[in-house]
Amino acid sequence: MRVDHVGVATTDAAELADLYTELFDAPVAHEETFDGLRVVFLELGEGSYFELLEPVDDGTTIGRYLEESGGGIHHVALATEDIEVALETARGAGVELIDEEPRGGAWGHDVAFLHPKSTGGALVEFVEH
Amino acid sequence: MRVDHVGVATTDAAELADLYTELFDAPVAHEETFDGLRVVFLELGEGSYFELLEPVDDGTTIGRYLEESGGGIHHVALATEDIEVALETARGAGVELIDEEPRGGAWGHDVAFLHPKSTGGALVEFVEH
Repeated sequence: MRVDHVGVATTDAAELADLYTELFDAPVAHEETFDGLRVVFLELGEGSYFELLEPVDDGTTIGRYLEESGGGIHHVALATEDIEVALETARGAGVELIDEEPRGGAWGHDVAFLHPKSTGGALVEFVEH
Repeated sequence: MRVDHVGVATTDAAELADLYTELFDAPVAHEETFDGLRVVFLELGEGSYFELLEPVDDGTTIGRYLEESGGGIHHVALATEDIEVALETARGAGVELIDEEPRGGAWGHDVAFLHPKSTGGALVEFVEH
């Protein structure tokens, strides 16, 4: 596994993308509106990204996170070559899963989230490209 | 730049290290007690790590973070080949710095933190190995 991306919740993805591009030399690699969110991926080196997440619809979990926190790091995503095996390992370790099965995520990737109460409070996503 | 590590605040670094090692196939690469913290680095692929941070002294910022949040993702560290240049770029972008100059961090690396109020709420660290 490797760090695929760090997800950051924001009220203004375009503005934060401009800043991060300048600050971290991280150009926009992909953007789309997905699942009620404006999603912008900024490419760092070696296949790792920031994923900026801005709610554009009401009732998203990112929207609730923004209300509670004001914005910031929301999750870390780890790339795996076989997400089914990763989930089976998590089940074997007694970890509660948010997604029992992989689902289609942003950028056409298969994703699944682990419940943060099982991982010391860190929201971790598995992603398979 | 690339993602060097994701810092996770915890009340029990040893227990969380055992879980993450099993869950993410991330063995312990380094551990030390530094600056009032038990610090454990777990190696993911391609030179990226989890950094588990457990307070062992009173009055640490990680201790306060744990009291407020219960634990979880605390910061993301980006590796840079020249931390002075990275800080100069940040200054040029109008970002407030927690560390105006690089300081010695865990594992003997030079580090500097950016103020999260300048980066959309995300606590970002620059690290030079």
